[in-house]
Amino acid sequence: MSEAKILIVGSVAFDDVETPAGRRPLSLGGSANYFAVGASHFAPIQLVAVVGEDFPESHVSALRDRGVDLEGLERVDGHTFFWRGRYGADFGDAETLDTQLNVFADFQPKIPVDYKKAEYLFLGNIHPSLQEDVVDQVESPKLIGCDTMNFWITGEAGALASLLKKINLLVINEGEARLLSGEKMISKAVDKIRAMGPEIIVIKKGGNGAALYHPDGQFFVPAYPLERLTDPTGAGDSFASGLMGYIAQQNSTDLSTFKTALLYGTVMASFACEEFSCDRTLTLNASEITDRFEEMKSLISLD
Amino acid sequence: MSEAKILIVGSVAFDDVETPAGRRPLSLGGSANYFAVGASHFAPIQLVAVVGEDFPESHVSALRDRGVDLEGLERVDGHTFFWRGRYGADFGDAETLDTQLNVFADFQPKIPVDYKKAEYLFLGNIHPSLQEDVVDQVESPKLIGCDTMNFWITGEAGALASLLKKINLLVINEGEARLLSGEKMISKAVDKIRAMGPEIIVIKKGGNGAALYHPDGQFFVPAYPLERLTDPTGAGDSFASGLMGYIAQQNSTDLSTFKTALLYGTVMASFACEEFSCDRTLTLNASEITDRFEEMKSLISLD
Repeated sequence: MSEAKILIVGSVAFDDVETPAGRRPLSLGGSANYFAVGASHFAPIQLVAVVGEDFPESHVSALRDRGVDLEGLERVDGHTFFWRGRYGADFGDAETLDTQLNVFADFQPKIPVDYKKAEYLFLGNIHPSLQEDVVDQVESPKLIGCDTMNFWITGEAGALASLLKKINLLVINEGEARLLSGEKMISKAVDKIRAMGPEIIVIKKGGNGAALYHPDGQFFVPAYPLERLTDPTGAGDSFASGLMGYIAQQNSTDLSTFKTALLYGTVMASFACEEFSCDRTLTLNASEITDRFEEMKSLISLD
Repeated sequence: MSEAKILIVGSVAFDDVETPAGRRPLSLGGSANYFAVGASHFAPIQLVAVVGEDFPESHVSALRDRGVDLEGLERVDGHTFFWRGRYGADFGDAETLDTQLNVFADFQPKIPVDYKKAEYLFLGNIHPSLQEDVVDQVESPKLIGCDTMNFWITGEAGALASLLKKINLLVINEGEARLLSGEKMISKAVDKIRAMGPEIIVIKKGGNGAALYHPDGQFFVPAYPLERLTDPTGAGDSFASGLMGYIAQQNSTDLSTFKTALLYGTVMASFACEEFSCDRTLTLNASEITDRFEEMKSLISLD
C-alpha cells in the first residue's frame, strides 16, 4: 500500500453566492477547485481545468502551495466560468440566477502526458462527453469516480449512458439517483444504476448523511452535526475529495477502506460548509481533520 | 440487571388510512396500541387507555396474547377515538381529513394500583396535562419517556413546559424540536430543550434515521433501508417501543444501552411501515427482530 495520485478534471469558476449567512460576490468555486483543495490533504493531486485571464494569480499560488500539480490548468483569453446562485432559508438546493460559461464553453480537457498514468481519476460535474473523453485519455486507473447532475441526466442521457459503462464509482445525490434510475426507493435506484455500469455507488443526502453501496457491502453515515453553516456550495465536491483522497492515500478500494473514506468525505463536506468558497478547506490542518474524523467515528460507534 | 415493566399511557384508535400503497378504512391504531404491540417483544407491558363499545374483542385478545396487561384498558359507552388521514406520494406527514375524539374526549387516565410501581413509563402523544397527571400517579419510575406533537407545542405551551420538568427522555421529530425550541439547528434546539427538563433527547428523522443526545454522549443512526413501504402510521410509536423496550429489558439507562436501544427503535419502526396498522409488529418473531438488528449493526459498522 502506497499513496497514489489523483487526477481531477472539472470546472474552476467564479461564483456569486448568497446564503442566509451573507453574500460573497466573488467566490472562488468550481468542482475541480473544491475537489483539488480538499483532496490535497490526502494525496498528490493533478488538476485539469480551464480559467480565463481574469483568474487571480493568488489562487493559483494557493493551489500550488497545497501541492496541487497545475500543469493541466489551462489559461485562455476571456473570462472564467461564472455562476450566481442563492440559497433559501433551509440551505437546500440553490436557485441559479445566472450562468456564464465564458472560457468553459470551448473547454476540451487536454491531459498532460505525466497525468495519463494517474492511478485514481475523478470526473467533476461537466458534460458527460467531456468526462468520457478524459477517461479515454488516461491509461489504466485503478478507480474512476464520477459526479453528474440533473441537467445532464435529463438533457444528455445518451452521452451519460455511454460514460457510465466506463466508470467504477458514481457519487450522486438522492434526487439525481431517482431521476437517473426512474426509481423512488433508493435501494432499487442503486440496483438499476449498477446495471448501467458503476459497481460502486455513493448516495449523498446533504444534511442527512451518505450511503455507500459497494459490491462487498453497504455502509450508511450521518452528516456531521454542524454548528455553523455558511455556504453549502462545493459541499458535494468536498465530500468527493475526502472520499477519493482517502482511497488514493490508502491505495485500496476494498469495502473497509471505502467505509473509512465515506467518513472522511463527510468530514471534508462539513468543513466546506463552514465558510464561503474553499476558505475553510484551504487552511485546514491535519489535526483538525483527524479530530473531526474521530468525532464522526464516535457518533456512529455502538461502543 | 433484570427485565423491568413498562407502563404505556396513550391513545387506542380506529384509523382510516390512505397511502400510495392503498387504503385501510378500519385500521387499529393509536399511540398506546402501537407502542404496546412493539414493546411487548422486549418487556412486560402495562397499558392505560380508553376504547368505546365498538372496539373489537379480537384485538383485545391479540394484545393479551402478546402478554400485554390490560387491567388499565378502560371500556366506556360510545365510539372509539377515530382518525382519518392520507399520505402523499412521498409518504411524508399525513394530511388529517377527520378527527373524532369520541370516548377520548373525557379520558382521565386511571392508573391501577399494580401499575404504580412500573419502573419505566412512556407517555404517548396525548394532552400534556393528562401526561403530567399520569407522572404524578406513578411512584418512582427509573425513566419517564414522552412523546408530543406540534398541536400541543403550539396550543398548550404552558402545560407542556410543566410536564417537561418531570420527564427524563423526550422522543420527538426534527420539526417538533425546532418548533419547541425556536432553534433551526438541531444541536442548538437540543440544548434548549434540555434546559426545559429532559436530560435525554431522541430526535426522529423519519427516513433519515434518528439521533440520541445523552448526557454521556451522542449517537446517530440511519433508518433501515426499507424495500417495501406500506403505511408509516405508528412508525414513531413503534420506534419508541423498540427504544423503551430494550431499555426496560436491560434495565439500564446508560449510554451504551441507549445506543443499542436506538437501533432497536429503528428496527421496530421499519417493521411497522411494512404493513397497515400493527399487522407486521403483531406477528413478528424474535429472530426476525434479531436479524434486522444485526443488519442495522452491519450497516453502521466500520469493521
